[in-house]
Amino acid sequence: MRANPGRASSLSLAGIVERLGGRVCGDSGIAVSQVGSLENAGPGEIAFFSNPRYKAKLAQTRAGAVVLAPAAEGLTQIARIVADNPYAYFARLSQLFNPEAAVGPGVHPTAVVSKSARVSASASVGAGSVIGASAEIGEGVRIGSGCHVGERVHVGDECRLYPSVVVYPDCRLGSRVILHSGVVIGADGFGIAEDHGRWLKIPQIGRVIVGDDVEIGANTTIDRGAIDDTVIEEGVKLDNQIQIGHNCRVGAHTAMAGCVAVAGSARIGRHCTFGAGAIVLGHLSIVDHVHISAATVVSRSIRKAGTYTGMYPFDDNESWAKNTAWARHLAELANRVKSLEKRLKERNDD
Amino acid sequence: MRANPGRASSLSLAGIVERLGGRVCGDSGIAVSQVGSLENAGPGEIAFFSNPRYKAKLAQTRAGAVVLAPAAEGLTQIARIVADNPYAYFARLSQLFNPEAAVGPGVHPTAVVSKSARVSASASVGAGSVIGASAEIGEGVRIGSGCHVGERVHVGDECRLYPSVVVYPDCRLGSRVILHSGVVIGADGFGIAEDHGRWLKIPQIGRVIVGDDVEIGANTTIDRGAIDDTVIEEGVKLDNQIQIGHNCRVGAHTAMAGCVAVAGSARIGRHCTFGAGAIVLGHLSIVDHVHISAATVVSRSIRKAGTYTGMYPFDDNESWAKNTAWARHLAELANRVKSLEKRLKERNDD
Amino acid sequence: MRANPGRASSLSLAGIVERLGGRVCGDSGIAVSQVGSLENAGPGEIAFFSNPRYKAKLAQTRAGAVVLAPAAEGLTQIARIVADNPYAYFARLSQLFNPEAAVGPGVHPTAVVSKSARVSASASVGAGSVIGASAEIGEGVRIGSGCHVGERVHVGDECRLYPSVVVYPDCRLGSRVILHSGVVIGADGFGIAEDHGRWLKIPQIGRVIVGDDVEIGANTTIDRGAIDDTVIEEGVKLDNQIQIGHNCRVGAHTAMAGCVAVAGSARIGRHCTFGAGAIVLGHLSIVDHVHISAATVVSRSIRKAGTYTGMYPFDDNESWAKNTAWARHLAELANRVKSLEKRLKERNDD
Repeated sequence: MRANPGRASSLSLAGIVERLGGRVCGDSGIAVSQVGSLENAGPGEIAFFSNPRYKAKLAQTRAGAVVLAPAAEGLTQIARIVADNPYAYFARLSQLFNPEAAVGPGVHPTAVVSKSARVSASASVGAGSVIGASAEIGEGVRIGSGCHVGERVHVGDECRLYPSVVVYPDCRLGSRVILHSGVVIGADGFGIAEDHGRWLKIPQIGRVIVGDDVEIGANTTIDRGAIDDTVIEEGVKLDNQIQIGHNCRVGAHTAMAGCVAVAGSARIGRHCTFGAGAIVLGHLSIVDHVHISAATVVSRSIRKAGTYTGMYPFDDNESWAKNTAWARHLAELANRVKSLEKRLKERNDD
Repeated sequence: MRANPGRASSLSLAGIVERLGGRVCGDSGIAVSQVGSLENAGPGEIAFFSNPRYKAKLAQTRAGAVVLAPAAEGLTQIARIVADNPYAYFARLSQLFNPEAAVGPGVHPTAVVSKSARVSASASVGAGSVIGASAEIGEGVRIGSGCHVGERVHVGDECRLYPSVVVYPDCRLGSRVILHSGVVIGADGFGIAEDHGRWLKIPQIGRVIVGDDVEIGANTTIDRGAIDDTVIEEGVKLDNQIQIGHNCRVGAHTAMAGCVAVAGSARIGRHCTFGAGAIVLGHLSIVDHVHISAATVVSRSIRKAGTYTGMYPFDDNESWAKNTAWARHLAELANRVKSLEKRLKERNDD
Repeated sequence: MRANPGRASSLSLAGIVERLGGRVCGDSGIAVSQVGSLENAGPGEIAFFSNPRYKAKLAQTRAGAVVLAPAAEGLTQIARIVADNPYAYFARLSQLFNPEAAVGPGVHPTAVVSKSARVSASASVGAGSVIGASAEIGEGVRIGSGCHVGERVHVGDECRLYPSVVVYPDCRLGSRVILHSGVVIGADGFGIAEDHGRWLKIPQIGRVIVGDDVEIGANTTIDRGAIDDTVIEEGVKLDNQIQIGHNCRVGAHTAMAGCVAVAGSARIGRHCTFGAGAIVLGHLSIVDHVHISAATVVSRSIRKAGTYTGMYPFDDNESWAKNTAWARHLAELANRVKSLEKRLKERNDD
């Protein structure tokens, strides 16, 4: 029933810690062959526990073993691997049990590869994909069906493009970049100049430069620069349906959840995180290690690391209507408070 | 000028109620051959009236006939069909006049179908589409051009995939599922674990399971589960550009308008509705029969049926600026009110 | 390193003003061959200055020349072109240096063109694209690879469809329309009628009509009308990931930034602008010359030109939590103020 039926054979807990570190508590001979969730894992599977909220699920799990932190070691009696960062440990363990399916190299007969493109012998190009003139496709690259790689695009080693990805001309992908289906890299930025009530198009002559180890989710779009380049630094992780405007720079190891929108020319630091649906207005700067909550609109630059939020609270519709009516009269309310303070002060002064 | 030129020939109102129920008021011999809007329908067309807001349009319509509720029967003198649910009646009537264009079965010569895939003889596969190994394509399925159906995907009977749809490996579509262009089903969920300032990818080994009679709008994305499956139950209707994160469950007959974002592991009940741009944060539960207004951020679980809203009001820019400045000083304002109350109470106590 | 390596050869400032108007201040013999940003332009490049915020960058630029407004003429001593609207001037200048790369006409051998389609001899159709029955492709049209143009679609002269665009049957594009990758025009609108807890589909029989000189960004979707047409008037510019619901009308020369969502049947005027992530609810009207700020939810019709905003402010997380708690108790706070006013008045009346 799993997505990847060709998974690794089973390993004992002893065998796992030999490969990945950590320490076994309980029967180290127990063998597991796949990861699972606390809720649904069976005896041959290993789950993880890192969120204290799920204590009840830990107590009820039928998993063969569990990965947890030293502080949680005593919470269960089933066989367990103790690791400082159980979630990261679990990631490595899942990678071990779920290697990517191998794809034989070669260009599908229905693909259309320009004569001047260089496709390495170890790369694969799927059915109907188009590789433009002078494009370079690195070692071990896997390009799915129906992709379009524009002229002079550079695709670094071991990149993976899922079906229906488009990379416009001249953009560059580093190594090990993953682009999910529907991603569009390098479309024209939204550059228009008003001229007597009409919009003139400003040619977008910059590129998109994507660093190593970047992963970009389905239907996310990153526009090419107007003049200079749009840059996504190494290790950035973008979820689905994100829009990155022209000339932005997203710092290394920053992660954004789904539907984030970043307007043009924003500069975002390294190691930042963005919750779902956050919006960053244009021409702003955000320093390193800033965390933006979901649905927050960043309307001015952020110069200090920390967590920032601007989510308007929801309520039952009636309460919302009653309270929100006042949101449009806050200044009046504040003036009335000020007036009361003044009158009370005058009385005191009497 | 209509989208579907091969529509049914004309029917008298008597003939319509014979097929669909309801009752004629006025000349039942009047014939119509297409649906129309109150504004633009002509004599050979039938419109519907259900929103009292459009009384003036009803009065002015040139439609040959109109569908309306018993309570509205007296609002016009033109021929009319009286039905308890005029909008649902109109839906059936439009289906009658606008059957889907027939598509002959068969695999286009430019499609690439794996030898191990099973494509039923009554299915059609469009130009350039790719059907992966061991995929199953049911009876009467219509797959447009440029689609990618991954390995081991199951596509139930009578499904329709418009051009440029991608379904990742191992996902399952029930019967009569409609996927519009640009839909991506089963891309990797956003599963990353931090490890010393870098992100480790967590393989996404769950699937997406889509129930019967689900319709999914253009460019909507539904991610596969991290470990367990993402599930869209039967009868769910999703508009365009929606993002459903990994491990979500969307209950049967729930409908979401455009641009809704649902973060990972949310559990949404049956018969819910979501307005445009609503956001549901991760790991929350929403019970059945909950209605979320547009642009509302659901930041905690909802345990009671009802309508919930969290839309921040807009205003002319100057008023907004004046009032919103206080939104960042509400606690201070509340303290000043508290202090006034205290002082006034002290006075009273004097 | 530029996206378009086949750019025009260099021009002197005198030669530029001869073509585009304006006036040279300083050495009119200075030659430039490309546009650049104030930050990164070199001696052979020309930058522009229009935002007073960037005075420091102007002072430090190494550009060979700069375009600026009469009022800014004295801010630098480098060679400059003085123009009333420097940004529009710059747009024309960049167009001069960056003409679109020529694409030879012709239908790629892997494209699938219906026998009944009419493709003009000067048009080009890319690899794997599909042109449906009775479609009309105008003079000089360029259709990229992997596009799908449905039955009876009209594509006006000089349109450009980037790879992976889908246009559903019967839609019409004016002349010089640009559609970026992933755009979907004419998918079914979200028309469903509730019937005893289930949703009935309402056939969407209207079309999408796109006027001349419209540009539509990557992954934007525009739904076909339910009965009448969805209309995008001439000169409209839409950024990426925008959703336009069925039956909307977007007035001429209106521009929308990324991720805007417009619900069904909204009527939007001419010469309006929308910031990123703005949402317009359904069945509303907005007059001409309205400017909606980013992240603003337009929840009622706007009958007066002007700028409107509804962005909830963000703050450091702690301050936000403290203040926002009161957003759900504003009515209570207002009542307490009212009560204080009353008590104080009573005292005065004593």
